[in-house]
Amino acid sequence: MIEVEIKARCGPDVHHKILALGASALRIENHRDIYFNSQVRDFKGTDEALRIRIKEDGAHLTYKGPKLDRLTKTRLELTSKIEGPEVMEKILVELGFVPSGEVRKRRIKYSLGETILAVDEVEGLGLFLEIEISAEEDWAMKRKCILDLKEHLGLGESIRKSYLELLDEARLEIGHPDSPRGQSP
Amino acid sequence: MIEVEIKARCGPDVHHKILALGASALRIENHRDIYFNSQVRDFKGTDEALRIRIKEDGAHLTYKGPKLDRLTKTRLELTSKIEGPEVMEKILVELGFVPSGEVRKRRIKYSLGETILAVDEVEGLGLFLEIEISAEEDWAMKRKCILDLKEHLGLGESIRKSYLELLDEARLEIGHPDSPRGQSP
Repeated sequence: MIEVEIKARCGPDVHHKILALGASALRIENHRDIYFNSQVRDFKGTDEALRIRIKEDGAHLTYKGPKLDRLTKTRLELTSKIEGPEVMEKILVELGFVPSGEVRKRRIKYSLGETILAVDEVEGLGLFLEIEISAEEDWAMKRKCILDLKEHLGLGESIRKSYLELLDEARLEIGHPDSPRGQSP
Repeated sequence: MIEVEIKARCGPDVHHKILALGASALRIENHRDIYFNSQVRDFKGTDEALRIRIKEDGAHLTYKGPKLDRLTKTRLELTSKIEGPEVMEKILVELGFVPSGEVRKRRIKYSLGETILAVDEVEGLGLFLEIEISAEEDWAMKRKCILDLKEHLGLGESIRKSYLELLDEARLEIGHPDSPRGQSP
């Protein structure tokens, strides 16, 4: 499954704008995302991601492949629901993967046809809107849909970096002692 | 969790012997086990295993660490229940793991106190008994229990090889064109 996705910073008025489009509010989720890196190929370099997401309705293991274009975050995404995320974390560590950081956020999800709009309040970063459509095919056309929607909502520049990368940058800027990850004394 | 485990070949009279000990029949399971190897460290050499097991009541991802002693198959075992084993297989392949073989068996499970006895009818190999106890600690003592039980049941030599290794050996002996795995034309 290809996830056609775009992300941009937004203001608190975005909820109003989304509902004005005719979108339906779906639910509120609280995410704890644990990211892993590989010891044999640095996922920052290969533009991949491996993540355990823990939320109210259960946990999932997700792999994301390299992004497929320059304007959006469109990429292969594979997700399997798992029970016992703690055990899955141990399995990944035994297999040589290294926990590389954690992102916590509150997500309010809306649907508009086949499009999902997620307003994310990310701890340490602020407010973002992600617009996504999952596609088996025709992802180029769906990419145009979500770029149009982004324009319509008057959002700023598209951000292709992950929340994890943005958190690292934010820590670097304020000289946080934990950053960059893995290089602190 | 440490899995203290022993395996030996047995005859069809083993069911009678197990029930005569006072064990309770638990259930019959049909297993399809898909094994994976790592591209960066050969699990045959490191004595590890990574497996997706699909059975009637769902699927599990299991990692097994190197065996801890010479007489039994005692080792670290981590298991996480998963939904959608096909997606998990794709995730493992994207992460660089390679499907290395499949084992199909019918397992009849008995319990005797904290001990599990599993009579496995393995496709292409025949009948085996596995005796196992899961232990957080004291695994040396539990190891003695299952060795005594094995003697009591009059079983033959303890087999430390996996069904996958035994299947490979069997294919080699009969000059099966598929063996050894990955080296056929």
